[in-house]
Amino acid sequence: MNYQLDYISRLFEKTSKKRLENYVISRLWHKLDNPEIKFVPQQYVSRNNKKYALTDLYLPQIKLHIEINEPAHYLSPERIEIDNKRKSEIEKRTNHQVKIVDCRKELPELHKDIDLLVEYINQKVAEYKKQNNFRAWETDNEFSPQYHKSKGILKIEEEPGFRTIEDICELFSVKVPKRGFLRAGGVKHPTDENLFIWWPVDKNKNWENEIIENDTIIIERNKDMEKRKNHVNSCLNSPANRIVFYRNLDILGFNFYRFKGIFTLDIEKSSPEKGVVWRRIEDKLKI
Amino acid sequence: MNYQLDYISRLFEKTSKKRLENYVISRLWHKLDNPEIKFVPQQYVSRNNKKYALTDLYLPQIKLHIEINEPAHYLSPERIEIDNKRKSEIEKRTNHQVKIVDCRKELPELHKDIDLLVEYINQKVAEYKKQNNFRAWETDNEFSPQYHKSKGILKIEEEPGFRTIEDICELFSVKVPKRGFLRAGGVKHPTDENLFIWWPVDKNKNWENEIIENDTIIIERNKDMEKRKNHVNSCLNSPANRIVFYRNLDILGFNFYRFKGIFTLDIEKSSPEKGVVWRRIEDKLKI
Repeated sequence: MNYQLDYISRLFEKTSKKRLENYVISRLWHKLDNPEIKFVPQQYVSRNNKKYALTDLYLPQIKLHIEINEPAHYLSPERIEIDNKRKSEIEKRTNHQVKIVDCRKELPELHKDIDLLVEYINQKVAEYKKQNNFRAWETDNEFSPQYHKSKGILKIEEEPGFRTIEDICELFSVKVPKRGFLRAGGVKHPTDENLFIWWPVDKNKNWENEIIENDTIIIERNKDMEKRKNHVNSCLNSPANRIVFYRNLDILGFNFYRFKGIFTLDIEKSSPEKGVVWRRIEDKLKI
Repeated sequence: MNYQLDYISRLFEKTSKKRLENYVISRLWHKLDNPEIKFVPQQYVSRNNKKYALTDLYLPQIKLHIEINEPAHYLSPERIEIDNKRKSEIEKRTNHQVKIVDCRKELPELHKDIDLLVEYINQKVAEYKKQNNFRAWETDNEFSPQYHKSKGILKIEEEPGFRTIEDICELFSVKVPKRGFLRAGGVKHPTDENLFIWWPVDKNKNWENEIIENDTIIIERNKDMEKRKNHVNSCLNSPANRIVFYRNLDILGFNFYRFKGIFTLDIEKSSPEKGVVWRRIEDKLKI
């Protein structure tokens, strides 16, 4: 299956239990009918220092969040107030726009609202294009190391992903490491000896890693306590920073190595019991 | 929620596990963008005397079945042959048309195929309208006893459904029967003493009824063996035919009283052990 169809059909499936949300998202997609426009479900946005929100749908290319409010959102003045506050906090914090689809309406009115939203999105896309500021959703390039190499930069907000370790090595023009029957966990950076290219997996036979706090902290630990201890000590002795391509199941069920930034060893928090704690220090990387 | 939105969003939800089918059906619905056109999922059609098929999508107003074939349908010549045979048997048997959507195609080609199908459907609808042969999907009327009364006929293929016992009684201008704390199972026909208006429920506290063999046979039985025996005997003594409004969960999760035709007692098959067996003798009823 074509990756774009795979992606969008998984997005529909993801929302299928919320029937109104699913109806609105599928209508938006089919009515826009523009494969250049990317849809991102459940986008993380911080609201203030403590709180965050997951918006129903995000169109990153035009910085537009869409919240699809089922009738329950309007049951009380308190709930409406909470939603309004959330909307304005997101807008203030991110400088993005938030549009609301009110699902209390009857079908013809709901359709009209979606038509207006489609018109608005098309207009925004045209504006961005006019300013040479629109990068089409190129699903063919999305996983191509050559494409990212020629672009010269990885940014976490673009969620660059790679299908294989070979592709990650290709990106840095390094040889794919071999390590007998064990899979190598990474490779040295070809020119910067303070950097290590790392492709951890969430969980496997030997490791139970975790990426937490909105992808800013990674905890690396061997399941075997003896090996965990040795590993922690060896990291403390050679604390190169790590360029991270973390592999886990994403919200749509894809399993890619995603660029998560550059991480440094958190010496204080690491321990033989807890494992090695890595803290993000950079959210982009020039290649 | 508006009934039409409820219906279509349930239909989307129903197919959400089959992602390609869901994508194609949602695209067809939104691209047609015509609330007059009814979509029916998994339509039963007989293929020959023994076999039947459930087609993925049926548009009853223009007698069009749409089969959405995932790539697995094309894995072997045998499978392709089976699908072709199925298609021609359905067409021969029903005199309906069957269109196939081939989901092996890349997204742009798939979109083109769906666009062509949308064009075809619009053209068919226009033809039917020209011949005064198109009855718009009037969801407001679908459950209205007044509407069916003025139409003067119930046909099982139109799947007339009613929300309440009051609505069924209204349809025949009879008084709603009262029976203390027990819910009455039906009421005598106001003019024809050989007919009984019956609204059985699939299963409840006291009964475990069943409707089988493509809705042509109903088995009625009390859970209590003593009561079952008495009930069978009383039916055998007063064997009026029954106008049936059967209430069960339909494929989209709705729970309506659906007109299923007129049924007669099958004396030979009924027994105190098995329960009362009713056999369909009419698929329409003049009111």
